Amino acid sequence: MIKTPYLLFLGDAPDPLAAKVAQGIRDWRPENAVGQYRMPGCQADMRLPDMTLAQARAAGAQTLVIGVANRGGVISPAWKKVLIAALEEGFDLASGLHNLLRDEPDLAAVAAACGRQLHDVRVPSVAYPIANGEKRTGKRCLAVGTDCSVGKMYTALAMDRVMQARGMKSTFRPTGQTGILITGDGVPLDAVVADFMAGAVEWLTPDNDPDHWDMIEGQGSLFHVSYSGVTMALIHGGQPDALILCHEPTRTHMRGLPGYDLPSLETLRDTALPLARIANPACQVVGISVNTQHMDDAEARRYLAEVEARMGLPAVDPFRHGADRLVDALAAI
Amino acid sequence: MIKTPYLLFLGDAPDPLAAKVAQGIRDWRPENAVGQYRMPGCQADMRLPDMTLAQARAAGAQTLVIGVANRGGVISPAWKKVLIAALEEGFDLASGLHNLLRDEPDLAAVAAACGRQLHDVRVPSVAYPIANGEKRTGKRCLAVGTDCSVGKMYTALAMDRVMQARGMKSTFRPTGQTGILITGDGVPLDAVVADFMAGAVEWLTPDNDPDHWDMIEGQGSLFHVSYSGVTMALIHGGQPDALILCHEPTRTHMRGLPGYDLPSLETLRDTALPLARIANPACQVVGISVNTQHMDDAEARRYLAEVEARMGLPAVDPFRHGADRLVDALAAI
Repeated sequence: MIKTPYLLFLGDAPDPLAAKVAQGIRDWRPENAVGQYRMPGCQADMRLPDMTLAQARAAGAQTLVIGVANRGGVISPAWKKVLIAALEEGFDLASGLHNLLRDEPDLAAVAAACGRQLHDVRVPSVAYPIANGEKRTGKRCLAVGTDCSVGKMYTALAMDRVMQARGMKSTFRPTGQTGILITGDGVPLDAVVADFMAGAVEWLTPDNDPDHWDMIEGQGSLFHVSYSGVTMALIHGGQPDALILCHEPTRTHMRGLPGYDLPSLETLRDTALPLARIANPACQVVGISVNTQHMDDAEARRYLAEVEARMGLPAVDPFRHGADRLVDALAAI
Repeated sequence: MIKTPYLLFLGDAPDPLAAKVAQGIRDWRPENAVGQYRMPGCQADMRLPDMTLAQARAAGAQTLVIGVANRGGVISPAWKKVLIAALEEGFDLASGLHNLLRDEPDLAAVAAACGRQLHDVRVPSVAYPIANGEKRTGKRCLAVGTDCSVGKMYTALAMDRVMQARGMKSTFRPTGQTGILITGDGVPLDAVVADFMAGAVEWLTPDNDPDHWDMIEGQGSLFHVSYSGVTMALIHGGQPDALILCHEPTRTHMRGLPGYDLPSLETLRDTALPLARIANPACQVVGISVNTQHMDDAEARRYLAEVEARMGLPAVDPFRHGADRLVDALAAI
């Protein structure tokens, strides 16, 4: 568990896109972000107060989160200076970078000397069990996609936000690095050893109140041959009561796999639902989340109306139009 | 790659079943087993020559393979004495035990001093790539099961043996500890990190001659919620041209999952084939392998005839009646 709230480290981000992690935290857990730390030349801006390390500590920040992807995969000397000063100032550090904080001898030494934690959220920190398949109390919703990176995480976060606003019981359950940094805990599922994937998802979504919903972050796609095993483990370990189908209609082939077509939403439904019912015979597909970012407003509305009529399920872009109708569908089952 | 041939270490096996690994090697790669090493009280016998370490070295053995499951998960002091003597005698050691040889300080020290290898086949020794889904040359066959432990490995080994005898080009591709110890290499798939599972299977079954068959060892089951992600990665990473459906008809529930029924062979076919065709649109289900060990001969033949008529595919117990008809079906596609 990463201590909140955070100071978001934007470093020398070459462009706003490089600060995707910081943006996720700012968008979805603004209460966790007391401010931002930018270095000279930083091209990203979360529109949070710019703070020194001391100011952020005084404002209550517990952890400096690396909210930016680094260039060339190394933790640069310029970053190092700030990170070491942060440890000395009393911050823990958290990172989802491929290069681990703990593998940097200077950071590890200062952290040990100062009694601070280094959180590398790409690395599992728990010995997960083998899944036992036992029915758990409470309810679970999983977003499954026609492809990777079609908006599964944003869908779960948007639905969770609406549920919180309505006073429903819900918890967003992260399964990837960005999600973990947004909330402070979760399972880095793509880094879990194969035998324990489904068990890690069971561990993440334990028994709960009968009217509580775990909003599980999806990963990969059953139709993406590189990562489909991870998706399968989510479907069986998560034993969802509800599936949301996610789609990005302008994509011409599966992400990173030229020559692989995306499946239709019908094929996704007819593939995912029988597999989900192995673990939870009551599972239903309740709605469709479409990422319309590459469509203009008229085109997006036309497309959503067409999908909704064709599939007989609410079809929305939760980021563009809100997740209310998806939550209505969830609340109805 | 583990150096062959082997001396099979049976230790103080409490019963014949404990020596399953040794039996697999003896049954499927007898040319790799020059002899057996038994300690006082050993209740297993592979009917191989009993040898001292020196005799086995003289007969050409390169590696002492721990062919027995240990009691209580520890490498006993009694075993240790033999294992250390083996290293000093010039043997490498190979093991599929949960407790790793490399984690035993005395074994590690002697191995280093003598320049010998410790092979813990539960631990991947390769940095596998992310799967790229590109079509590979050569052909691949994968056994998929209605449950775990229904005979997928034996089916692939039995078919490979028939193919070798017929002069066909084939290679058994192990994906589990026993298979790896039988042949000397492979991928311990259940120990691979999630993101790299499908890539590990691609790595294991590379481009080959157009008429060469990789006979891939299956793992888990799409219907076994603990391990289905591993099965999914095999189906997509292996991009099989042919599937063999495996079944054990007397099982009353999924292995280790009371309350979970086994699927029918029809459901297995209708679930696995569309998933396999994502990676290889030409994939076909070519035959059915039934583990009839708990049936008498008349019952087994009656059951196989019924399945064959119902499914319209050759249905055999390859261990009991030979794998010829499955290989005929493979050769016909």
